[in-house]
Amino acid sequence: MLAIVIIGSGNVAQHLIRAFSQSGSIEVVQVFARNAEAVSRLIDADKITSDFAQLKEVPLYLIAVADKAVAEVSAKIPFEGKIVAHTSGSISLSELDPKNTRAAFYPVQTFSKDKAVDFRQIPIGIEIEDPTQKTILEDLARAISGKVFEMDSKQRKALHVAAVFSCNFVNHLYALGNVICDRHNIPFEVLQPLILETANKITTLSPAQAQTGPAIRGDFGTINAHLELLDDNQSAIYQLLTQSIIDHGKKL
Amino acid sequence: MLAIVIIGSGNVAQHLIRAFSQSGSIEVVQVFARNAEAVSRLIDADKITSDFAQLKEVPLYLIAVADKAVAEVSAKIPFEGKIVAHTSGSISLSELDPKNTRAAFYPVQTFSKDKAVDFRQIPIGIEIEDPTQKTILEDLARAISGKVFEMDSKQRKALHVAAVFSCNFVNHLYALGNVICDRHNIPFEVLQPLILETANKITTLSPAQAQTGPAIRGDFGTINAHLELLDDNQSAIYQLLTQSIIDHGKKL
Repeated sequence: MLAIVIIGSGNVAQHLIRAFSQSGSIEVVQVFARNAEAVSRLIDADKITSDFAQLKEVPLYLIAVADKAVAEVSAKIPFEGKIVAHTSGSISLSELDPKNTRAAFYPVQTFSKDKAVDFRQIPIGIEIEDPTQKTILEDLARAISGKVFEMDSKQRKALHVAAVFSCNFVNHLYALGNVICDRHNIPFEVLQPLILETANKITTLSPAQAQTGPAIRGDFGTINAHLELLDDNQSAIYQLLTQSIIDHGKKL
Repeated sequence: MLAIVIIGSGNVAQHLIRAFSQSGSIEVVQVFARNAEAVSRLIDADKITSDFAQLKEVPLYLIAVADKAVAEVSAKIPFEGKIVAHTSGSISLSELDPKNTRAAFYPVQTFSKDKAVDFRQIPIGIEIEDPTQKTILEDLARAISGKVFEMDSKQRKALHVAAVFSCNFVNHLYALGNVICDRHNIPFEVLQPLILETANKITTLSPAQAQTGPAIRGDFGTINAHLELLDDNQSAIYQLLTQSIIDHGKKL
């Protein structure tokens, strides 16, 4: 059993603690949590600490904290020559303290409180500066995921940007759809099958092939009628995305 | 058995022909198709016509053609006093020829060629100018869908706009994510679990509750690092949606 310490108590940390605890092949010997309450249902109280001086010595530390705190936390680990991996999509290995072997362990998923996820289906992108220690990081990832792949820091950053478009921005478009529905007394649930089908479609078609709607048809009558229904912010987004769909359609 | 004629041979028409033929309670006695080839696998050749003079007399005609052709097609139906329903999200009843009872039959879904859909899960919004004939339209919709609801022309237009945001624009964001992945040699498949989870999430959380990412966290370090990776068009979309997420977050 590989013994690890997880540093963090937010959504990602909580999901990782749960997944590793259920894995059977990884032992979470300790969790560093400034907010012990947040992880108290996931691990025994005597395995939680908020004092770096009390950190147990293990071969691998997993840092799942806010991006801006990763570098500082990596410097506070009171050991050397271990593997220290962060879980962020947007941080380079070089931002970690070099006293330990620097690594990344990036689960490509959106984590919300109170929403369970199936970790076996979550791709995990790994990177480690010392190739001779890659197996340990790989074993860690394979303990919870069936989709482990290698990527460098630049690719991880690009993937994180792509994820912001395909997830964070997508969710905001759902939110704008919700606002429009509310304003016209239409239950937002009416859009759910459409939303699910739109997501499912791109498992069999490329997004370029799957594009439908007035923009790709060049249906300016409908586009202009739509713009009349929108407020300034909705209208700006509608026009920019419509133009982008038209421009990308021309390149195909 | 209610006998109907379907006018059209595009994606929506094809999916409707298939769904009604399998319904057991609706008889598609004829399909009007300028392109007979497109529907030849769905209905017998002797039931296909491209001549309005040959149109059979039935109680109900369903027009599933391009938006701009709907009005003209409704005028060419050589009968009066029937129900004529279009399937468009963006057309008012008033655009149909008044010689027949005007109606709308709007399946809230995205239809692509070669991609089967489960019609029972597709909401269908119905509207008819003569309330005494509502039952016929309702029976038609219930023959293929478990989610039939009434809405007026203004609500249908608003729902169509909301669907453009939640489906067409969403798909374009997938496409932009795909472009970014391609440019950095990352397989787009890596994003699929994230995309599916993002869509699934809003069946249990509201989109406002489900929002994650650098914009809602106010993480400008990550936002600025992302902008450096983007081309002008991607950057304009990134900035506009990021600002919109921040502004909506403030209202909560």
